[in-house]
Amino acid sequence: MKVMVGGTFDPLHDGHKRLLDRSFDLAGPDGHVVIGLTTDAFASRKVHPIRPFTERRADLETYLANKKFSAHWMIESLNDRFGSALETDFDAIVVSEETLPVAVEINKARRERGRKKVDIHQISCVLAEDGRWISSTRIYRGEIDIHGTLLKR
Amino acid sequence: MKVMVGGTFDPLHDGHKRLLDRSFDLAGPDGHVVIGLTTDAFASRKVHPIRPFTERRADLETYLANKKFSAHWMIESLNDRFGSALETDFDAIVVSEETLPVAVEINKARRERGRKKVDIHQISCVLAEDGRWISSTRIYRGEIDIHGTLLKR
Repeated sequence: MKVMVGGTFDPLHDGHKRLLDRSFDLAGPDGHVVIGLTTDAFASRKVHPIRPFTERRADLETYLANKKFSAHWMIESLNDRFGSALETDFDAIVVSEETLPVAVEINKARRERGRKKVDIHQISCVLAEDGRWISSTRIYRGEIDIHGTLLKR
Repeated sequence: MKVMVGGTFDPLHDGHKRLLDRSFDLAGPDGHVVIGLTTDAFASRKVHPIRPFTERRADLETYLANKKFSAHWMIESLNDRFGSALETDFDAIVVSEETLPVAVEINKARRERGRKKVDIHQISCVLAEDGRWISSTRIYRGEIDIHGTLLKR
């Protein structure tokens, strides 16, 4: 199966890892996974500073190489919420609880263009020690680490 | 992975088959699939007559046996929209575009009960020859067959 997933992945935390791992589960050993990585221009709308694309891509590549997934994968630049998801043939998109509405929009736009809708797989977010979601913003603020452990300050 | 899926499955059409096949893909060869089948009382709220539970279950069992899935599976009775989905530990629920809201409700109710949320996999509906969804109602009305072929009348 061909699966698409996207994000800013900065820093690469346990929620992102779950999103990526599930994408490869779904693609299967002979599948394809396309990982959209937001460009610096597009990621700059975030509320906190983001590391440059090349550094974020290098971290992703290290993670994926270490996991030794047998499916093919490639990283493409995401300049907007949709990337190539409206123009490409693929089977499923993997999203978090936060980004489910984007997937629903993608299917609507695909249908309007006469393309088939894709399956949507929404992973449940990974929770930090305090039962709230792990998020890049919380990590940036120094509340938790990338595994969701609470940091005493 | 342990996956839950549910329906009335009357008659078992290509949309249902896609829902079931994807549930087994997701569960993986060593996984578990729990198929909730609506009871006659619960299914009676449908707009058209439904065949008895035992006949619907027999058709499901025949389909699943023929597919020779290696994952374990079991069929349980669904007396309401949730079945055992609020009380059981499992990993993912597979729904159609029509039943996505039920999965979102299940996750909300699970969280309120202190249970972990599950992944939600929404399959895209299978289209009939005319580009509209295959549905039991359309088959009952004699518009299409179980594969979505238009029936001339």
